[in-house]
Amino acid sequence: MPILASIAAASTRRFNLNALKRNRSCLSSLPILGSSVETLKLERNIDITQSQRSASSSSTNTRGFEHEHDEHYKWIQHKMVFAAIFGLTGSVLYWKSRNGAIKAASAKSSLQPGGGVQPGLPTYTLSDVEKHKTKEKRIWVTYKNGVYDITDYVTSHPGGTKILLAAGGSIEPYWNMYGVHKQGEIVEMLEELRIGNITEKPKEQAFDKNDPYANDPKRHPAIIPASSKPFNGEPPSAILTDNFLTPNDLFYIRNHLPVPDVNLKSYKLDISVQGPGKFTSFSFDDLKRKFHKKSTAVVLQCAGNRRSEMVKIKPVKGLNWGTSAIGNAEWSGPCLDDLLKQAGIDIDQVTQKHILFGGMDKDPAGSPYEASIPIELARLLKRDIIVAYEMNGQEIPRDHGYPVRIIIPGIVGARQVKWLTSIKLSNEESMCHWQQNDYKGFHSSIDWNNVNFKSVPAIMELPVTSAICEPIEGTDLAPDADDVTVKGYAWSGGGRGIVRVDVSIDGGKTWDSATLSPPKQPMYKTFAWTFWEATLPIPKNHKGKVEIICKAADLSYNVQPDSVEGIWNLRGVLSNAWHRVNISIPKS
Amino acid sequence: MPILASIAAASTRRFNLNALKRNRSCLSSLPILGSSVETLKLERNIDITQSQRSASSSSTNTRGFEHEHDEHYKWIQHKMVFAAIFGLTGSVLYWKSRNGAIKAASAKSSLQPGGGVQPGLPTYTLSDVEKHKTKEKRIWVTYKNGVYDITDYVTSHPGGTKILLAAGGSIEPYWNMYGVHKQGEIVEMLEELRIGNITEKPKEQAFDKNDPYANDPKRHPAIIPASSKPFNGEPPSAILTDNFLTPNDLFYIRNHLPVPDVNLKSYKLDISVQGPGKFTSFSFDDLKRKFHKKSTAVVLQCAGNRRSEMVKIKPVKGLNWGTSAIGNAEWSGPCLDDLLKQAGIDIDQVTQKHILFGGMDKDPAGSPYEASIPIELARLLKRDIIVAYEMNGQEIPRDHGYPVRIIIPGIVGARQVKWLTSIKLSNEESMCHWQQNDYKGFHSSIDWNNVNFKSVPAIMELPVTSAICEPIEGTDLAPDADDVTVKGYAWSGGGRGIVRVDVSIDGGKTWDSATLSPPKQPMYKTFAWTFWEATLPIPKNHKGKVEIICKAADLSYNVQPDSVEGIWNLRGVLSNAWHRVNISIPKS
Repeated sequence: MPILASIAAASTRRFNLNALKRNRSCLSSLPILGSSVETLKLERNIDITQSQRSASSSSTNTRGFEHEHDEHYKWIQHKMVFAAIFGLTGSVLYWKSRNGAIKAASAKSSLQPGGGVQPGLPTYTLSDVEKHKTKEKRIWVTYKNGVYDITDYVTSHPGGTKILLAAGGSIEPYWNMYGVHKQGEIVEMLEELRIGNITEKPKEQAFDKNDPYANDPKRHPAIIPASSKPFNGEPPSAILTDNFLTPNDLFYIRNHLPVPDVNLKSYKLDISVQGPGKFTSFSFDDLKRKFHKKSTAVVLQCAGNRRSEMVKIKPVKGLNWGTSAIGNAEWSGPCLDDLLKQAGIDIDQVTQKHILFGGMDKDPAGSPYEASIPIELARLLKRDIIVAYEMNGQEIPRDHGYPVRIIIPGIVGARQVKWLTSIKLSNEESMCHWQQNDYKGFHSSIDWNNVNFKSVPAIMELPVTSAICEPIEGTDLAPDADDVTVKGYAWSGGGRGIVRVDVSIDGGKTWDSATLSPPKQPMYKTFAWTFWEATLPIPKNHKGKVEIICKAADLSYNVQPDSVEGIWNLRGVLSNAWHRVNISIPKS
Repeated sequence: MPILASIAAASTRRFNLNALKRNRSCLSSLPILGSSVETLKLERNIDITQSQRSASSSSTNTRGFEHEHDEHYKWIQHKMVFAAIFGLTGSVLYWKSRNGAIKAASAKSSLQPGGGVQPGLPTYTLSDVEKHKTKEKRIWVTYKNGVYDITDYVTSHPGGTKILLAAGGSIEPYWNMYGVHKQGEIVEMLEELRIGNITEKPKEQAFDKNDPYANDPKRHPAIIPASSKPFNGEPPSAILTDNFLTPNDLFYIRNHLPVPDVNLKSYKLDISVQGPGKFTSFSFDDLKRKFHKKSTAVVLQCAGNRRSEMVKIKPVKGLNWGTSAIGNAEWSGPCLDDLLKQAGIDIDQVTQKHILFGGMDKDPAGSPYEASIPIELARLLKRDIIVAYEMNGQEIPRDHGYPVRIIIPGIVGARQVKWLTSIKLSNEESMCHWQQNDYKGFHSSIDWNNVNFKSVPAIMELPVTSAICEPIEGTDLAPDADDVTVKGYAWSGGGRGIVRVDVSIDGGKTWDSATLSPPKQPMYKTFAWTFWEATLPIPKNHKGKVEIICKAADLSYNVQPDSVEGIWNLRGVLSNAWHRVNISIPKS
């Protein structure tokens, strides 16, 4: 099959007209920008990652394993670097590759389908491949035993520059992400770009028995680390709107401590009440067999999502999240209410004021992560709180709380306790650090010298937010592009659905209404997110650059605040200002 | 009793230390400003009122009696004028009166207590008194048959310039507002300022049988009209924070149609279900005797509260509300749920999607005002919705829905149907104009040419808001004042309590935390408002003027948007940006 035909075939299968239009006007046709800047940024990115790792592994502090050190503020550039990889490389390639290179590739070949060893081609190491991530050094990927130079193919890729996620490494995790690639003709097409073999197997990292993080699970290579120990990371924003249900291995990871390795056979979930003491224990098997299984799509969002926008105003303490510390998954398991009833507890009648959730992740002193919610909130969400053992129909991955976590729809991620092992009704809220002295919102004149964490309640429901996922910051549109398709997510806490997303391409002077794709959930229990899309005409008077803005209104017509300055806070939480992305439109 | 001693006695009874401090630093000690400006503004105010009345009375439109005409936009200056009456007059007086005038008054007199006719003094008409509203023309008030010149007393008034509310008219309605005045020594003190008698009785307005508004009730003179037919009005903001429960006659009035005059004996409340038809009727007596009476303090707020701030950006259609189209009252009556149960309806089981509430106020075509809420919301608020027959422990005034209105806590005023006569479960929401084509929120590029009212849901829960009630716009502090005490309200829809009010006296560069007085309500069912107060030091580098700002965060950490521009909409609803007040600090 001729390569261009196979691209076309793949296109019709996976990409709708809008996606193709977007590709044409936006992703595949980016203009040339200084490539030395790009390389520099990429190298700095790797340096930061390494220094980050060593910094994190050598330090613990009195708050247990809380590794949100000042070093992490360096990560301010991290998302920008990814933007560079996505955008700039593609733009450089566009002008050189269009026909010649691909035709040359077609002419090569006697094909060895399926990534097997191809005799007569050079053998490379994984380290060799890793050096080839940019157009200047050529962009290489691996597939099984094959090494491929995709440099000249990038701009023809129907999925746009997302192919660059694999630059310098294996393409397989991304093909797993996008099922359309699992076809013979795609492999065949890839083989046309074959330049060598790889025989080496990826090295297992040496197990350091003194490192409490040594037994942490592997993460998908697309996850952008925000810290390594504990591991925290988010997917690139450009892939977030590909799936209404965020795939498990692309769901942002927020760990406060090392990831427990739980033995299912000995797993117990204890239910107790302050005063009477322990009531009941449930085994994993009990949870699966004794109760009705409820499934609901629920967004989890870190309180610090979009913190990187606050960091630009003034440093804050916290992981430098981009816009993707948020994900939407279908969670399944018994209703908390059913478990409590089984344990003889009627949530409407108890006198205790809080429900505490204890995890199995522990700090060096042996204290577990714990969070609580007010009993009032538990009553409002009575049939909505799930003791989940499945995430998107699969067992919950270790990073997300295997085997069981609590899912409390509409509230902040920090209370969605993973590796759940105890549920306790108590007169006092959890005394855990993250409940008492973190995840609270202050005004911008509160600093670490005058903060009084007791003055405001722990964050529960989150405010309305939205973000632009595509195009990403720094994108260069096609020269003299007429329009640009903008995509993103919107969500609000408390089950409040999204009623409107407004988008602007002139920095907020005029606004358009985005088309919403609301989830099929009741309007007052909209716990999943709402994707939105708008195709905006490029203003005639643009001077080569435009600012795209989005802002959402929820069911109670709460809106996002205009500026980050107005909501800046020392901990960098609740960062829900209008989201702004700057893109360029070069003259042809 | 010497007059100054009686003032001191009154002070200790009614005013706490903070109030006195505020008086000293802010209200009683304002510097002299051009008095001709003041007179001009006052006269313009009266002119506007009169033109407003004639404009309103001569027009009806196709949407029934909706009298929110363009003429009303003139009212933008209305609140400012009130500010002038409050602030400027007091300031002028301060410098002249301090000792001399009051001592002179003490020297007069053989007193006739209680406002009886005082032989030997001149007789004035009500029209004469009405001309005396400013320092230049002297400030007169009446009490029963007495006429008093209070000009030289104003700055000594322990309640500050609020006494000027009565300028040119009777002081009795305000003494009823502030109970402390109902004492012999206060009357005695007033008599020292006696200048004349009044024998005339206030004229009853001629009844015009062709005017559907002719039978509207009388309103408290402190209510600032926003339109006369239908009557809409709000209290001055400076008196709003005097009472946690807004007195009935000072509660903002929002009428869409003429006020019904209901005969209690024939009053019926019909409950019906689409399909099966009429279920049950309740008499007023049934409501009072057959059901448990529930009482809750609930804020009602017009969707257009603070619309005047939007008008400054660009004209909008709607009444030009200041910050006081909001009030908090204790409403009493049966739970809606109990009534429905009695009618055989289980709100959790019905298949109908909406509950419609019908009023007795009708447009010229005979169509009544009607509103509906989604059944989902009715379920969330199951035990909170009250079929109210009492407002602050009294029968509901005619303007507020006598004898019965629905109270749905946490949502917009427009659904709190007054003169309630029918409750209907239906598959469709109300088709009433105000449900379908009004009270919805759009972005600022939607105009009357491109608006699609079907594109967004009817406003139910309202977003978080707060406003500064004192000092009012244009206040002049005492020369070289060190600080200023700022007071206001904060509230959010959906029962979300207020967790923080931030105040700034440097235009938003730095912030202070206000002290909150939250109501004693559950945190997720905080339906009443939260008063707040802060004493802010005047910045050293002020140049004679400072901008005070307040902004609140609610329990879900939703915040007010920074700018009015960002939320401007063609209907001027949902105006909840940071509230800003500009005041002056003259040099001594």
